[in-house]
Amino acid sequence: MKRNIYLEDIALDEAQRVFREALQGVGLWGPLAAEKIPVSQANGRVTAEAVFARISSPHYHASAMDGYAVCAKDTVGATETSPLQLQVVEAGAPVEDIQRPAQAVNTGHPLPAWANAVIMIEHAPPITTEAGEPGIEIRAAVPPWHHVRPMGEDMVASELVLPANHQLRPVDLGALAGSGHSIVSVYRRPRVTIIPTGSELVSLEEAHEAEEESSPVAPGQIIEYNSIVLASQVENWGGVAVRRPIIPDHLPEIRAAVQSAVCDSDLVLINAGSSAGSEDYTSHIVGELGRLLVHGIAIRPGHPVIIGMLECGGEGVHAMREVPVIGVPGYPVSAALTGEVFVEPLLALWQGQPPLEPPTLEGTLTRKIVSHTGDDDYVRVSVGKVGDKLMVTPLSRGAGVITSLVRADGILRIPRFSEGQNAGDRVTVHLYRKPREIERTIVAIGSHDLTLDVLAQHLAEKAGGLRLMSANVGSMSGLVALRRGEAHLAGSHLLDPQTGIYNESYVRRYLPDQKVMLVKLVGRQQGWMVPQGNPLGLADWADILNPDLQFVNRQRGAGTRVLLDYELSRRGIDPAQVAGYDREEYTHLAVAAAVASGAANAGLGIRAAAEALDLDFVPLASEQYELVIPASFYESELLRPLLDLLHNEAFRQAVEALPGYDVSAMGEARAV
Amino acid sequence: MKRNIYLEDIALDEAQRVFREALQGVGLWGPLAAEKIPVSQANGRVTAEAVFARISSPHYHASAMDGYAVCAKDTVGATETSPLQLQVVEAGAPVEDIQRPAQAVNTGHPLPAWANAVIMIEHAPPITTEAGEPGIEIRAAVPPWHHVRPMGEDMVASELVLPANHQLRPVDLGALAGSGHSIVSVYRRPRVTIIPTGSELVSLEEAHEAEEESSPVAPGQIIEYNSIVLASQVENWGGVAVRRPIIPDHLPEIRAAVQSAVCDSDLVLINAGSSAGSEDYTSHIVGELGRLLVHGIAIRPGHPVIIGMLECGGEGVHAMREVPVIGVPGYPVSAALTGEVFVEPLLALWQGQPPLEPPTLEGTLTRKIVSHTGDDDYVRVSVGKVGDKLMVTPLSRGAGVITSLVRADGILRIPRFSEGQNAGDRVTVHLYRKPREIERTIVAIGSHDLTLDVLAQHLAEKAGGLRLMSANVGSMSGLVALRRGEAHLAGSHLLDPQTGIYNESYVRRYLPDQKVMLVKLVGRQQGWMVPQGNPLGLADWADILNPDLQFVNRQRGAGTRVLLDYELSRRGIDPAQVAGYDREEYTHLAVAAAVASGAANAGLGIRAAAEALDLDFVPLASEQYELVIPASFYESELLRPLLDLLHNEAFRQAVEALPGYDVSAMGEARAV
Repeated sequence: MKRNIYLEDIALDEAQRVFREALQGVGLWGPLAAEKIPVSQANGRVTAEAVFARISSPHYHASAMDGYAVCAKDTVGATETSPLQLQVVEAGAPVEDIQRPAQAVNTGHPLPAWANAVIMIEHAPPITTEAGEPGIEIRAAVPPWHHVRPMGEDMVASELVLPANHQLRPVDLGALAGSGHSIVSVYRRPRVTIIPTGSELVSLEEAHEAEEESSPVAPGQIIEYNSIVLASQVENWGGVAVRRPIIPDHLPEIRAAVQSAVCDSDLVLINAGSSAGSEDYTSHIVGELGRLLVHGIAIRPGHPVIIGMLECGGEGVHAMREVPVIGVPGYPVSAALTGEVFVEPLLALWQGQPPLEPPTLEGTLTRKIVSHTGDDDYVRVSVGKVGDKLMVTPLSRGAGVITSLVRADGILRIPRFSEGQNAGDRVTVHLYRKPREIERTIVAIGSHDLTLDVLAQHLAEKAGGLRLMSANVGSMSGLVALRRGEAHLAGSHLLDPQTGIYNESYVRRYLPDQKVMLVKLVGRQQGWMVPQGNPLGLADWADILNPDLQFVNRQRGAGTRVLLDYELSRRGIDPAQVAGYDREEYTHLAVAAAVASGAANAGLGIRAAAEALDLDFVPLASEQYELVIPASFYESELLRPLLDLLHNEAFRQAVEALPGYDVSAMGEARAV
Repeated sequence: MKRNIYLEDIALDEAQRVFREALQGVGLWGPLAAEKIPVSQANGRVTAEAVFARISSPHYHASAMDGYAVCAKDTVGATETSPLQLQVVEAGAPVEDIQRPAQAVNTGHPLPAWANAVIMIEHAPPITTEAGEPGIEIRAAVPPWHHVRPMGEDMVASELVLPANHQLRPVDLGALAGSGHSIVSVYRRPRVTIIPTGSELVSLEEAHEAEEESSPVAPGQIIEYNSIVLASQVENWGGVAVRRPIIPDHLPEIRAAVQSAVCDSDLVLINAGSSAGSEDYTSHIVGELGRLLVHGIAIRPGHPVIIGMLECGGEGVHAMREVPVIGVPGYPVSAALTGEVFVEPLLALWQGQPPLEPPTLEGTLTRKIVSHTGDDDYVRVSVGKVGDKLMVTPLSRGAGVITSLVRADGILRIPRFSEGQNAGDRVTVHLYRKPREIERTIVAIGSHDLTLDVLAQHLAEKAGGLRLMSANVGSMSGLVALRRGEAHLAGSHLLDPQTGIYNESYVRRYLPDQKVMLVKLVGRQQGWMVPQGNPLGLADWADILNPDLQFVNRQRGAGTRVLLDYELSRRGIDPAQVAGYDREEYTHLAVAAAVASGAANAGLGIRAAAEALDLDFVPLASEQYELVIPASFYESELLRPLLDLLHNEAFRQAVEALPGYDVSAMGEARAV
């Protein structure tokens, strides 16, 4: 019976077929067993069978109002001018001898057997009858069944209340209870065991103990968080997640951990050890403890996915049972996408539900995407609504960049055998956010400044759900993005060497045909970012030729690089003389990080970035960082809260607290 | 300081303003306090402050591949024809004396200080060097930083990871952990205490103990389930719900329960006791224990809503604190809508989120809605996509009909001072379901048959998410709905007295211009539904004139009523002679329920309905119940699974198990 199929990098749909057939073969391609639970605890669960009403609701004729139960024919003849008197009787009292009885009832009370209508309390003022009894006086007749909820108005006993495979919402629980059910049969929640493996991993809890130290982890150590992401995904998808402790890269230990998990689980996730490195044991263990079905899937990110079936029991009277296992790749983006592509549909199936289908949206691609033709490619994208156009911008493709998933508004699926997509193509995005959130997003593409982070933070806190999404591509690329209609605004600090004025001449050149506003955000200091103590003693621009200097540069089009090139040319220095001139980073912080890590020993950037990473800073110039905003957006409702913030005292103080920032001109606007 | 404002039936927006101002006055108009919790438990919670990276990610230069760490300049010159040899060294070994060192690294490992690039394992076959040392051979040079994830590639220390007021998703937890956070500051979850009151209430748990009996509740008793609905709503909206035991209608007991809840709660919900009946104590208690702000809101359903502020503490050193309270009406639909209108926005606000905005959809109203001009009216509707048109049909308006919320696809809000909407109006529906679910709904409007319930159940179970929504309006109204394009199909059993053939002549008259298919569903017996033992001894149609008979009829246009009228006219009986002829019910089960409850002692209907409610049945006729389906829908993909089911053995057996049903002709279709 044991059959190992070993397939190297098969297509996604082929892998899904193999997995489906294996599950079908062992009766796991359908909902799990049912269990009976109290209705009061069934919110969000899925009915395993159709539910029929045990009792009617109401299960008696009930008063629909506070008032008096009467017999309708006793009210015939009552008018404004000839009122009728009814005698009030106690509940349960005999009425045979009473001419016109009326019994006080509240909403929901049962009607006495002799009554068939209710008169509202407002229409039945109390009186003493002519016979001296307590009574009411009415001035209008009522028809039979007036203000009565007849038995079965809501549900009639034996009627279908809910079908099977229905996910229970709060009101459904009311209908179940109201039709006489205190327990309900629902599908068992799938139990998913997650086993993180890797000698380099440090648990978040261990890292927590080291919190007080300057860094919670040593080089080479990695904080293990894929198991948290996977466990939270599993919970969001209705499963019960069990996170096991980290197992080091030691085959017998991993084998033991997997073995001990199998019989307790509906699904086992092993993370990672799924590629072909020297310590990747997952495929061996799956083959040893069951069947290895798939090793490697042509999907990006996520290539080294493993799929198999593990064996549980099989000795003595216990029949052997198979439990699916997925070897989840170690890179966080790959791990999260493996969850979406393989785990979610399975958990849905096991709970009688169709797989999640995220809403989709059509937009225009802003940049070319080159794709491996052999792979199904999942590209994280941001989506911005700029004017009437939905602009789709690819984010970092790196499988290790979890922030690309955090920032993603959706996923673009580029199918196998496609070579990619061109800028300007219409593409379909599978959304992570509601379309409404996309519409409430301000898109900033251009130069990076820490103030934009502070702005994003204040907008999220004060302007109820307004998002500022910023892509850091440098000042000039930001102006290009504005020209293409891809952004609402661009941060820019481009010095015109002729005039010494920032931005204006560039805006006229790049955006010649439209009215544009330039809004001052901050003045800030640019300078050397160097290791503590400034070991090379850098003081001026000319020190860039220091023979021991290893420079790290900003990318082409960045304002900081424009400034550098200007200062180099003024001094007649050839960039080729500068060691490291070609090494490019995209943000001030990335340059600072390169210096902090020792990959370089000097970079150019702003004081705040240097201080954030405990570097020394040698000021060289001050510059004006401005927001470039086409007039049509400047006047839009969408940008109003952002522009208002520039005059908000709390925001100005938060920015002023950043080192090297001058907020005195913040918010000043001029038309260009 | 104690100020009671008593307002009778004020407008919704006015009530919301009064509530907001009261909350603002005591500092409760904003997020609750923050609390620090482990990142691993923060899924779904909302950040209370912006989170900045504590460490970079990666926090060292990391290999992006399994392979060998090298110094890029050592690889210069390697080509296909002139390979270079590199000597493999152990991690940590000195490399000063080695000409071209290479160190094995797995993905994620830190680069040694002397290395700045990685060669993939596939491009570095192992060799023994000319000096006899273990080595690798390479046939291509690599540039610096090749296959290296530089420190900070994902996040740079001090960078903004997430803003405040962000609801945490699984990938966000990964980003938090990866940037060095093991704990995160989130808003406290609001604690909501729910106090059910009412002497008539029976808890679901008590009802459960009585499960074995024929009915779990006695007349006049009501199963308390509003607290389950409200608690589940609160949980879905991020709060912590505490359900208190049921308190009988006794003022001191209710007061004590409220008093004991206040200091433990962020919000107290008292259900019900909010209208003006003899046992409605809520407003008194709110006034006594704090401030009564609103009593009665002009909103339907939901009129008797109470809003107030309760006092907690205030003695000794403890400052007095105020806690909002809502008196929730007792009718289940009112209670659920009060939750949506008042509780949800407050819980969202307290967690730093904007209120939920359900997706909306524009459709065409199929029936006139008359609205009280003084009230904001919330009308439950079903929505069906029939052809290209979205048809919006109002459901039961009764506040006690919780199935109207269960069946609702959305809510139509008819603002105050509007008199309603006309059939054919374009209206905006706030959806409870995803638009995709609406598109996967088959709309049946017409005669009711139990088979439709079985069909709905089998479709939900077998056809993955396909819904059958049926509105029971009678056979003729179903044909009218088809003519108006409001439904995909109509159940019909209309006897033509001239020909004795069912449905054909009616279809030709009502749908003259289109090709229509008639599909046989079931043959069934129609007859007297009478109390057990048939006390009046009814045997034939003529017995309808029995002097002790209290009849309950079907509505105009129902096939059963057409049959009755035909048989009466054949016998020359005037309907005015029939006691109860004017009392109308809309389904077989509702007629059966009227007989079972004693409201009537005879009705006409099908055997299955009689047997479902333990009534006796006296057969009078057999009839053909058919589905009327316009040809364009008959051939559509949407209806295919339904038509296939008619030939499915399991479905036929389920229907045949119903008493009095003949499935021999099921699925036979003819064009008309």
